[in-house]
Amino acid sequence: MTLSTLLPLSVEWKDNYIKLLNQQKLPQETVFLDLFTIEEVHDAISSLKVRGAPAIGITAAYGLALAARSYETENVSDFLQRLKKDRDYLATSRPTAVNLFWAIDRLLRTATNASTVNEAKTDLIHEAIQIQLEDEATCRQIGEHALSLFQKNDSILTICNAGSIATAKYGTALAPFHLAKEQDFPLKVFASETRPVLQGARLTAWELQKAGVDVTLITDNMAAHTIQTKKIDAIIVGADRITANGDTANKIGTYGLAILAKAFQIPFYVAAPLSTFDLTKETGSEIEIEERNSHEVTHIGDYLIAPADIAVFNPAFDVTPNDLITAIITEQGIITENYKEAIPSLFE
Amino acid sequence: MTLSTLLPLSVEWKDNYIKLLNQQKLPQETVFLDLFTIEEVHDAISSLKVRGAPAIGITAAYGLALAARSYETENVSDFLQRLKKDRDYLATSRPTAVNLFWAIDRLLRTATNASTVNEAKTDLIHEAIQIQLEDEATCRQIGEHALSLFQKNDSILTICNAGSIATAKYGTALAPFHLAKEQDFPLKVFASETRPVLQGARLTAWELQKAGVDVTLITDNMAAHTIQTKKIDAIIVGADRITANGDTANKIGTYGLAILAKAFQIPFYVAAPLSTFDLTKETGSEIEIEERNSHEVTHIGDYLIAPADIAVFNPAFDVTPNDLITAIITEQGIITENYKEAIPSLFE
Repeated sequence: MTLSTLLPLSVEWKDNYIKLLNQQKLPQETVFLDLFTIEEVHDAISSLKVRGAPAIGITAAYGLALAARSYETENVSDFLQRLKKDRDYLATSRPTAVNLFWAIDRLLRTATNASTVNEAKTDLIHEAIQIQLEDEATCRQIGEHALSLFQKNDSILTICNAGSIATAKYGTALAPFHLAKEQDFPLKVFASETRPVLQGARLTAWELQKAGVDVTLITDNMAAHTIQTKKIDAIIVGADRITANGDTANKIGTYGLAILAKAFQIPFYVAAPLSTFDLTKETGSEIEIEERNSHEVTHIGDYLIAPADIAVFNPAFDVTPNDLITAIITEQGIITENYKEAIPSLFE
Repeated sequence: MTLSTLLPLSVEWKDNYIKLLNQQKLPQETVFLDLFTIEEVHDAISSLKVRGAPAIGITAAYGLALAARSYETENVSDFLQRLKKDRDYLATSRPTAVNLFWAIDRLLRTATNASTVNEAKTDLIHEAIQIQLEDEATCRQIGEHALSLFQKNDSILTICNAGSIATAKYGTALAPFHLAKEQDFPLKVFASETRPVLQGARLTAWELQKAGVDVTLITDNMAAHTIQTKKIDAIIVGADRITANGDTANKIGTYGLAILAKAFQIPFYVAAPLSTFDLTKETGSEIEIEERNSHEVTHIGDYLIAPADIAVFNPAFDVTPNDLITAIITEQGIITENYKEAIPSLFE
């Protein structure tokens, strides 16, 4: 078994079906689904069996290409009409997922350029594969840049799952760990469990363990003691959105880790592709923080862990101010200071 | 119903039995146990139905007084022999609980002074009640001092359960909230759930809700975002042990909160009775941190939330250095700086 087969993938194109990791079953069971129809793809996305913006986009693209293969028409106009209808159907699977819309609209544009139905069918599959390959390349570049910031035998803390299974491969914040493993570069990773939804415990611990990375699980409130006693050298996190000044919205708990990094004088890194930047927003104060259902906090599975009717505050994200961020790592390279000038220059 | 009946008590003497809150059943069920025999008391302590050092000591004292009532002898020497045997039996219920030994040995000394068996039986009951009353008075004094540090409508964050149900009444860190409720002094409390054992979610949220205190539950990693967006005015915590220089060992997560308090420039208070101080230790570096079973982190109840065989780091406590502590609140009053001199003076 080669190293790269150890690394779990969220989604794979299998010519006449899509192989999808059912992330809802993790960590209890490792189950892969074979999706043969657009309805199955729709269900997998809407029921959160696939998660992570890039992985959702890739799955949707494959879903649309898969559906188009079975259209029984030679008329390009008919073909495009059916494709548009299926595109609209897939769009309802997760209406807030920006990457999903981006991916299926990119496929739609591809098909528009074809002169025959057969050409369109082939182009759609190629384009969907291309989306996955591009994301894999982006993640690999992020990982290479991030790994250049670490020393051998460093201990690194991360939160949530900015991992291979959320992207085409490698992930963002977890990419340097997968590349280090490929290169026999020893690193020790501490994964914060990430309450309330436990992506760190359920997904990151699982993914890194599967990939053979040296990973230790902690609860979120152990971070300060762990940084101190386990001599953590750096913290690396992903991002949901980065504004023009470098303020970073990410999973709840990220902001607290950034404050700890400053207190312990260790670097705090954000790893994210360019597609994460939102230059329409000047600062993090413009980002609206989603508050989610209290059930996520009061229950684990069906198990009640608090008074059933207790008041709960359940913000899904927090915003880390730019001055707590040592560096932002993108596929284009590493930016370290004066984010207000460095970020726009990434897009020139 | 008066306010004081709303405040949950862990243990009550009921003349021929002990009424004990089964904290293992919280928060799903509020179950009180009637303990009639020393075996039932032993079981309640060893199976963690009662927790919190003072509450365990009080329960053990009542258990010994209860057992002694049924000794059928008029011979003081025989009586003391049986008492000593039951004392040794109770001592096995939780061999690491310092308060348990302190309480049952105090009862043993009391009985030694009696000249008849009947006198001894009565003295034992009175002494056990006295232990509870003294702890209640201590907690009330801590609460009054702590409340003097708060303003009306303050929002206060706490962790774990340094509460009424861990003590005779009122608790330590939670005492100001119960007194504020008695005095119609409005406060808003945020309870951090306190992974891995969830004392904040299971116990503090339950206790404060029962007592009619305005309490909101958050997960531990929401602290930074909550301090910022809910404008937390202060953090107050209990203590497991305070060394001669003011370094404080308390439930895991406390240290991280102290760092956040400093970053947000809000006060960080430790509330604890004098019995918590360990002047045989100069600094917190001399405190050994217990590491507990990985099952606490990987499971909630029987529910698996991480790969079953994942490596886990599970320290039960952390040590907050004295320079992060704004004040230590004891039954004797508040000390705020130069702990090295202020702490020994508490014991003069």
